[in-house]
Amino acid sequence: MPTSPNPLRRRETSRRAILDAALQLCAELGYGRLTIEAIAARAGVSKKTIYRWWPSKGAVVLDAVDDAASLVTDHIDTGHLAADLHAQLSAVITLLSPPNNSAITGLIAEALQDDELAHDLRERLIKPRIIAFKERMRKAQRDGQLAPDANLDAALDLFYGPIYHRLIFHLGMPDAEQLHMLVAHALRAFSPPDSTP
Amino acid sequence: MPTSPNPLRRRETSRRAILDAALQLCAELGYGRLTIEAIAARAGVSKKTIYRWWPSKGAVVLDAVDDAASLVTDHIDTGHLAADLHAQLSAVITLLSPPNNSAITGLIAEALQDDELAHDLRERLIKPRIIAFKERMRKAQRDGQLAPDANLDAALDLFYGPIYHRLIFHLGMPDAEQLHMLVAHALRAFSPPDSTP
Repeated sequence: MPTSPNPLRRRETSRRAILDAALQLCAELGYGRLTIEAIAARAGVSKKTIYRWWPSKGAVVLDAVDDAASLVTDHIDTGHLAADLHAQLSAVITLLSPPNNSAITGLIAEALQDDELAHDLRERLIKPRIIAFKERMRKAQRDGQLAPDANLDAALDLFYGPIYHRLIFHLGMPDAEQLHMLVAHALRAFSPPDSTP
Repeated sequence: MPTSPNPLRRRETSRRAILDAALQLCAELGYGRLTIEAIAARAGVSKKTIYRWWPSKGAVVLDAVDDAASLVTDHIDTGHLAADLHAQLSAVITLLSPPNNSAITGLIAEALQDDELAHDLRERLIKPRIIAFKERMRKAQRDGQLAPDANLDAALDLFYGPIYHRLIFHLGMPDAEQLHMLVAHALRAFSPPDSTP
């Protein structure tokens, strides 16, 4: 019978506690006032433990956002492309809320001034999600809901650009109806030839 | 004959020197390392002069970006909507370059963590330009180049969102050909009924 604690499980428990603490403290204090000390205290670990796994506050928050996003922003396929995109974009908007005080907003701001964090943000948080978006779009192409020659990089920009344009210029996140209209317009840009009115 | 210096003209000369210094130093040092001291030294004025007119570094850079943008980002009307939008968006992209080290990128990052600067960014830099964009779009509607019922808030999001989505996730600014495709797709979303293929 094993009586010694499982080091892998203990490590995962600490990791989970650190990421949860980072997100909670971001929401309470804002990203700017978040410190590694505060995360360590909240998670019940030493600063040394955090620095063993992450080089900076930004790196901790990046992993925390990555985990949180993975829980809610998967692309679904109900056969109704507009509804599926609306659902996925709504989840992204919820993650970004409140827009001027969310963990991901802090991360975006810091990455604009830190090339290494910018690299990790793009490669680890964003690129895998671009791949998932394009997979869903290719399925829509096979289903005849999207033009077979639709440029999926342009589609990415047109579906996701509006949210971040509003975020960085403090124009307010789209409500459900505005999001519905944005999705409908962007879909029109990529609709298959036989579906134009 | 007037022999005393004109105080209004002297004030304008100082203002111009301060804004020029702010933009030059942003390009040389990056927004993060820019200081009011350095701006004062470069412009040949006292820190006190700067603080008399602006409350913070962000406020100086906001005015500098506003002036720079006003010189190059007016909407033109050659009668060819796609080409006019391409020209205007190209000017915006040039202002944003290099994307990880431009004055406006620094301003966007700081405003994401500073509610007062965010307010000024939206009200003074962005909203007047949204009005100018919508005026150009209304002209296009009158000319039959855009659907008469096109939602101009959605149009704003779809034309400008892609640039800022790419900026904050470090995906690279669109080149001329990519921008052409983005404009063409976004226009398709708002094209008048009789122009669909």
